[in-house]
Amino acid sequence: MRPVAILGVGMTKFGRSDLTLAGLMSEASVAALRDAKLGNRSVDAVVVANMGAARVNRQTAIASALVDRLNLFPAAAETVENGPASGASAVKVGVQAIAAGMADVVLVTGVERMRAVNNLEATDFVASLSHPEAEYVYGVTLPSLAGMFARLYMSRYGLTRRHLALVSIKNHNNAMRNPYAHIHQAITMEGILDAPEARVNNPPIAEPLHLYDCCPVSDGAASLVLASLDVAQQLNRPAVTIAGIGQATDTHAVQERSDPTELSAVRLAADQAFERAGLGPKEIDVAELHDAFTILEIAESEAAGFFPRGEGHLALEQGVTSLGGTLPINPSGGLKGRGHPVGATGVAQMVELTWQLRGEAGTRQVPDARNGFACNFGGFGNNVVATVLRSERRENA
Amino acid sequence: MRPVAILGVGMTKFGRSDLTLAGLMSEASVAALRDAKLGNRSVDAVVVANMGAARVNRQTAIASALVDRLNLFPAAAETVENGPASGASAVKVGVQAIAAGMADVVLVTGVERMRAVNNLEATDFVASLSHPEAEYVYGVTLPSLAGMFARLYMSRYGLTRRHLALVSIKNHNNAMRNPYAHIHQAITMEGILDAPEARVNNPPIAEPLHLYDCCPVSDGAASLVLASLDVAQQLNRPAVTIAGIGQATDTHAVQERSDPTELSAVRLAADQAFERAGLGPKEIDVAELHDAFTILEIAESEAAGFFPRGEGHLALEQGVTSLGGTLPINPSGGLKGRGHPVGATGVAQMVELTWQLRGEAGTRQVPDARNGFACNFGGFGNNVVATVLRSERRENA
Repeated sequence: MRPVAILGVGMTKFGRSDLTLAGLMSEASVAALRDAKLGNRSVDAVVVANMGAARVNRQTAIASALVDRLNLFPAAAETVENGPASGASAVKVGVQAIAAGMADVVLVTGVERMRAVNNLEATDFVASLSHPEAEYVYGVTLPSLAGMFARLYMSRYGLTRRHLALVSIKNHNNAMRNPYAHIHQAITMEGILDAPEARVNNPPIAEPLHLYDCCPVSDGAASLVLASLDVAQQLNRPAVTIAGIGQATDTHAVQERSDPTELSAVRLAADQAFERAGLGPKEIDVAELHDAFTILEIAESEAAGFFPRGEGHLALEQGVTSLGGTLPINPSGGLKGRGHPVGATGVAQMVELTWQLRGEAGTRQVPDARNGFACNFGGFGNNVVATVLRSERRENA
Repeated sequence: MRPVAILGVGMTKFGRSDLTLAGLMSEASVAALRDAKLGNRSVDAVVVANMGAARVNRQTAIASALVDRLNLFPAAAETVENGPASGASAVKVGVQAIAAGMADVVLVTGVERMRAVNNLEATDFVASLSHPEAEYVYGVTLPSLAGMFARLYMSRYGLTRRHLALVSIKNHNNAMRNPYAHIHQAITMEGILDAPEARVNNPPIAEPLHLYDCCPVSDGAASLVLASLDVAQQLNRPAVTIAGIGQATDTHAVQERSDPTELSAVRLAADQAFERAGLGPKEIDVAELHDAFTILEIAESEAAGFFPRGEGHLALEQGVTSLGGTLPINPSGGLKGRGHPVGATGVAQMVELTWQLRGEAGTRQVPDARNGFACNFGGFGNNVVATVLRSERRENA
């Protein structure tokens, strides 16, 4: 396969935005294009990741709109949707266009403008990914699925709400170091769990998950400029390559899984990504996992192969996954701290990894990071995309 | 590029359906998979084309839902959206996955379930592809854009409403021979234009376009099974290959084009598809064009290179584009007769061409058809995908 490099990255601050959908896409895209220093090279194709603009923003064909906004005619363009894994799916589609030889330079932009609707409507919109006959009609939402999942996981592996809180505290604190993060609020175990007022400040959402176990509803966009490795070398760009992408699906209804605590699509996608990259979990220096709910970071860290089953919370407790640990997870703040504009998230994970692998992550830099891993989790684990990024500085050293 | 073949095709009858979205996708997909005779080969990836399920059906991540419905785990899956050109965009994404070597067998299914909403809501939904600040807010709809386009085209090239009616009559009559078509109603010039009651039966929609100049609102799904050519040869399937795909974008707002009658994205996409296929317009035996409005079939037949500019209506008048002519256009009935479930249309065009190139098109068969062309028209011509299909019987003869 023709190797693919990341030439440029950019994103908007995640949070509540007054920009239009095209405004958000444009801001992130221009930042990535500026970073890519393409010179007189043109963009051959644009892939937009988005889950719900047709419903939430009453706008369709937004990839064509982005071409128009940035004057990238006659670049090919389409939108890719895969629920909350839309971002990494779009990156995969961009990589395939280059690997197939149908494009040399591709702009991938993930976007969601979710705060246009209220939180109830946003929750219903995200729930539209659940099984329409087996889940949605019974009032299932993503928080409720995550709550049931957490309860089962805790009873099986001995986790407590304290472990879930540790994920939240770590990711909130990492987000304090990320100027693009939605939430800039340092939190403590005292404040969200131990103090008497924690009952009020951190109310239950879907027991055992409380407010601080759930990612916020965010607006935002994130972009990558991809190119064939030969174009990257011609342009003399600091090369981060997409070493491997894996993807796997699972049953739509969670209840149909023989063991609902097993995230088999995460395991299969990660295995495939590692195999294609020729790397293993032990060689990863930094990871961005899909912590839409705190329990997911722990469960994914095991399913991706970083820790044995049922021991992710122990690694967390020991600080292994903190900045300064041997495998920092979500230095960006993750979905919990950076925010979760659903279509943008998978792209933003790779933006963060690129900064880390280039040594440009500022006060949240993981020292000497060479290999990065991202898990973009769609549905309730029924469509997962895993990606391994590699700094090519290794070969040049 | 690794060559890609169409192993199997299938579709639902287009029209008003009682099936769910998953039911529609499943019916077309199962037909295509049965036709493909994959034996013990698995499907590596699923690409769904859909424009508006998030809004119209309140369902997202429907590609994962299709994997679940058909038990194709752990096949990769995503949805591709490109307005009314979603179908051909999804085929392109499937082709790229195979060409990149990331999949050997890919199921591409286009679907739309639009009759779940009323016609006004359906019209507003489709209008969501127009420019949000320069068109949509002023009440622009697709029929209104097509009406203005038709008026300008007619004044410049001497077309009359009679020419538009000829497209409609031809396509309605072709659709009578297509069991999958939405509209089974033979029409005449007398009935839709000349008779006194035509004023009532064929009322104006957006002058000069009347009811019989506009495609219907349809439910439906269409599927292709794609595979690398080596897999197709191993399975000994009648090989129709995707010889070339082209795609181009144009300004979002139609008013920004220096000549609004020039469909430059059609021209660029067709040129690219022909160049990649190593074929020219003269070598095409049968074409499926995007006649969402009758004027578009005429304009596209020129922009794609089949007839000189301004002479498409003369070829039509002479019967060149009828069944029995030298270049039958829309033997399926086109969007006018077969119907237009937007996400399904681009795939259905290739289903029809595959039947034609295999000699399986029954009473609407174009004799000895070897090369086919499809134009899937997104936005109001701002994102167009053109495809050239080739029967490999030629090489085997």
